Amino acid sequence: MLKLYYAPGTVALASHITLVESGADYTTERIDFKTNQQNSPEYLAINPKGRVPSLVTDRGILTETPAMLIYIAQSFPKAKLAPFEDAYAFAQAQSFNSYLCSTVHINHAHRMRGARWATEESSFADMKRKVPQSVGAAFGLIERDMLKGPWVMGDTYTICDPYLFTLAGWLEGDSVDIATLPKVAGHRKRMADRPAVQQALAEVNG
Amino acid sequence: MLKLYYAPGTVALASHITLVESGADYTTERIDFKTNQQNSPEYLAINPKGRVPSLVTDRGILTETPAMLIYIAQSFPKAKLAPFEDAYAFAQAQSFNSYLCSTVHINHAHRMRGARWATEESSFADMKRKVPQSVGAAFGLIERDMLKGPWVMGDTYTICDPYLFTLAGWLEGDSVDIATLPKVAGHRKRMADRPAVQQALAEVNG
Repeated sequence: MLKLYYAPGTVALASHITLVESGADYTTERIDFKTNQQNSPEYLAINPKGRVPSLVTDRGILTETPAMLIYIAQSFPKAKLAPFEDAYAFAQAQSFNSYLCSTVHINHAHRMRGARWATEESSFADMKRKVPQSVGAAFGLIERDMLKGPWVMGDTYTICDPYLFTLAGWLEGDSVDIATLPKVAGHRKRMADRPAVQQALAEVNG
Repeated sequence: MLKLYYAPGTVALASHITLVESGADYTTERIDFKTNQQNSPEYLAINPKGRVPSLVTDRGILTETPAMLIYIAQSFPKAKLAPFEDAYAFAQAQSFNSYLCSTVHINHAHRMRGARWATEESSFADMKRKVPQSVGAAFGLIERDMLKGPWVMGDTYTICDPYLFTLAGWLEGDSVDIATLPKVAGHRKRMADRPAVQQALAEVNG
């Protein structure tokens, strides 16, 4: 049995969807950001980074979305969520997910999490003003060069898809006009139609 | 034959070391940041992100260090650079590398690359002042909770080691006192003693 620690509206959704898609037995536990539960001693004992998601396995606790997605895919091979047998295709999928975690998510985080990288209110305001441009440029690259369609890697659904869907859900909040990103918009719609996505969202919001 | 595009002093060193360790046939080509060659039309045709490293394979071009490291390890299995057969151990290695790319490298990048996330000189200065603290805290977590020793994953050298070594090489520039990080310092020394590391550094600086 796997256990996912999550918070609504966070990147934990990508792992949540992947758990549903994989057919895994899992439970979830919600972490309340409003009361700063992610920095409570109890949660820091689970994840010393004070972030979500965390995935409790029978071997230990995993953090970092790209690693959790690989772990779920590799542990439930019948769901065929990653092309492990093809080194180049697998590296392409990892490259996509690495871009999401180290560029797209980071650009987005400068809207609300500026205190990670600066101290002054004027810097936070400056960072916020830049987010539509920096997130928009990263999604522009995805639209132009990376999203093959209909799924990220082409004809086959993989662990890249719920990750992109999760970050694309933040575009409106980041003041990026999704009408300028028709392939990303089409992907978001296709994802929203998947039963696994609807189940994960119902569990998060229910 | 693989081809690595790199620049001295960048994260490309992690992939370079891994190429040497893997026994791969490879060539390298240096990209000159002083003349902004990374944003030349010729290089953007190779890597539209305008960054290094890029790895040219016979199937196509890969970018993003965590993905390139997996690709090299999986393509040259005799070198045993990643525990592919053990889903949990492999996920732990990916979790470590994901933390390096999405937190450690990003914190560091706020010293020189603030224009990615802000516009005002005052913000850049504020970001720079925060780097010793943000990079120091990330390496503090590595020291306390993540670096098992003697190698990152314990007794076995993996693709996590050259990546940590590369980022730990920036600590002095980031004004983090490595004397406060004895395990990281010991790891850096062990890495510097490896012939593959010496060869890669000689090729970069030679």
